Amino acid sequence: MQTLTVDLNERAYPIHIGENLLRNAELILPHLATKQAAIVTNTTVAPLYLGALSDALAAQGVDILPIILPDGEKYKNADTLNQIYDALLTHRCERKTTLIALGGGVIGDLTGFAAATYLRGVPFIQVPTTLLAQVDSSVGGKTGINHPLGKNMIGAFYQPQLVLADTTALDTLPDRELSAGLAEVIKYGLIRDLPFFEWLEQNMDKLRARDRQALAYAIRRSCENKAEVVAADEREGGVRALLNLGHTFGHAIEAGMGYGNWLHGEAVAAGTVLAADLSRRLGWIGEQDAIRIRTLFERAGLPVDAPALGEDVYLGYMAGDKKVESGRIRFVLLKSIGSAVITGDVAEQALRDTLHVRHV
Amino acid sequence: MQTLTVDLNERAYPIHIGENLLRNAELILPHLATKQAAIVTNTTVAPLYLGALSDALAAQGVDILPIILPDGEKYKNADTLNQIYDALLTHRCERKTTLIALGGGVIGDLTGFAAATYLRGVPFIQVPTTLLAQVDSSVGGKTGINHPLGKNMIGAFYQPQLVLADTTALDTLPDRELSAGLAEVIKYGLIRDLPFFEWLEQNMDKLRARDRQALAYAIRRSCENKAEVVAADEREGGVRALLNLGHTFGHAIEAGMGYGNWLHGEAVAAGTVLAADLSRRLGWIGEQDAIRIRTLFERAGLPVDAPALGEDVYLGYMAGDKKVESGRIRFVLLKSIGSAVITGDVAEQALRDTLHVRHV
Repeated sequence: MQTLTVDLNERAYPIHIGENLLRNAELILPHLATKQAAIVTNTTVAPLYLGALSDALAAQGVDILPIILPDGEKYKNADTLNQIYDALLTHRCERKTTLIALGGGVIGDLTGFAAATYLRGVPFIQVPTTLLAQVDSSVGGKTGINHPLGKNMIGAFYQPQLVLADTTALDTLPDRELSAGLAEVIKYGLIRDLPFFEWLEQNMDKLRARDRQALAYAIRRSCENKAEVVAADEREGGVRALLNLGHTFGHAIEAGMGYGNWLHGEAVAAGTVLAADLSRRLGWIGEQDAIRIRTLFERAGLPVDAPALGEDVYLGYMAGDKKVESGRIRFVLLKSIGSAVITGDVAEQALRDTLHVRHV
Repeated sequence: MQTLTVDLNERAYPIHIGENLLRNAELILPHLATKQAAIVTNTTVAPLYLGALSDALAAQGVDILPIILPDGEKYKNADTLNQIYDALLTHRCERKTTLIALGGGVIGDLTGFAAATYLRGVPFIQVPTTLLAQVDSSVGGKTGINHPLGKNMIGAFYQPQLVLADTTALDTLPDRELSAGLAEVIKYGLIRDLPFFEWLEQNMDKLRARDRQALAYAIRRSCENKAEVVAADEREGGVRALLNLGHTFGHAIEAGMGYGNWLHGEAVAAGTVLAADLSRRLGWIGEQDAIRIRTLFERAGLPVDAPALGEDVYLGYMAGDKKVESGRIRFVLLKSIGSAVITGDVAEQALRDTLHVRHV
């Protein structure tokens, strides 16, 4: 097991990465305020891991309330959030009851937001079971739900007490979801870690073959990058926005295609290829770099051609992005592989050209 | 105008108290991140003060989105919250758009929670127009909504940038609401400020006659008390819970009678008389003190006899209180007038006796 720390002063917390961690109640017990916990999971993950986690904790005398939600991005909404509230209130869960998120990004975001807002805030723990959640969404305290008018529009910054990334849980992850997680892994290389990007080019086949050592390294390096960025800028006043590379385009793809039809990581992959294309049109990166980026996403099993929603549909969704400031869309673009910048200063024609080539 | 500060380090903010403040845009401008604001108010307050506030800001070039909600505690729920989100999203309000709460406690709690959760948090300003909101709910960052299973069950601690308590707005406040605000004013005297309690005994008639000087003094002294408690314990880990004197009983009354039938301050008054009765039964305060407390609430025009919901109904609601810990209801009780304590150690028979006498 390896342990990193997200250094947020009084809100600092550890990330444990390793095999069979969710069967090890000793890792969780020190982080529970009382021996009461609600485990929030979904119908896909529950049959696989709820019993193991629940039994391990119950054996240590922890009183467990399981809350099992439907699976899928389309359920990341106010109705599902209310199912969590109803269960907690019906079972009279108290301010010191810990919520444990057992699942992927949707479960983590929903559970974290429920924890942020139930009784004005109760403790929570992330036990991510997908690669995407282990390398990205479980770390950093972004929680929330979607709104019909935009993704993650309602939410809170709310940090967990602990992140437990059990690599054994990836054994049961479908290939498509493994690839989706790799999109966020590649992102860290692109925005701030050229050596990691090069390592990914060398080890992509191993990762897709689920080589345990390679996966553990990719997860650790991703979490290190994320923890450093979050520690520098918890509430996204500045540098943290770099983590959204490809996300402004990606959120438009997710919304435009209907939540859940494209996985978040898939939309980020195609969105990042658009961001690279726009960076190239602005003369910031060369043709070769753009091809190198596209190739790595392809080798990760990810879509690299964004859907032909039409320029105006893209622009409409993007104008509602959370990073919009004074009416200007703010883009995360690449200066080189390993270096990203945030800019609101993009020539509209270059943007339209980037979006236009999608009509293939 | 008088100004106090709620001392919360990087989240510190001023409270301005005085006449005609909401027509003075100069007080608000320094606290806006951009010249964009949404004013959230209700159908009762809008015709009285929305024009004045809105015109003053618009004259300084601030772009204003008015959001007018139905009036009443029964609308402090997820549906009304969603009306705010919908308006903000439809008008593409951004992360630096400031939400301004113009109204009483319901508007402040709803708007604050919307601000805490829209795009994971936008700035907000409290412009309380009721006595209760000016002396209590607008200060300290408690925000939230009710749930069918309990009051304020969903919410967040989220501090405003500024509180603007315009005493002129009290001119249009119905007598019943003025009295409801006095319940929270009396509370400060009871829990930590005997000289203020004595001042209230001497000046209650002036307050009910809306003597401006007396009201301004009562508001300032209340806000000073609240600001000190909140600065010592922002997230209610300890001493802040003393501010809930009468509230555990009071919330049971509000829920049991149907939200909005008893005003919050009315329920707190009757609930505090119950808390005083329980304190007396435990031998902590004398019969004379209990009578003195009851008398002051009566002179404030408040109900002092709690409704006969039945012991078990009371206990049922109280068991769902946010202060419950390890299944024990935690009470705020009085050691004397001017000194309160929190205890989970109350003999059930004494509690039942206190609740039983309500069956009159």
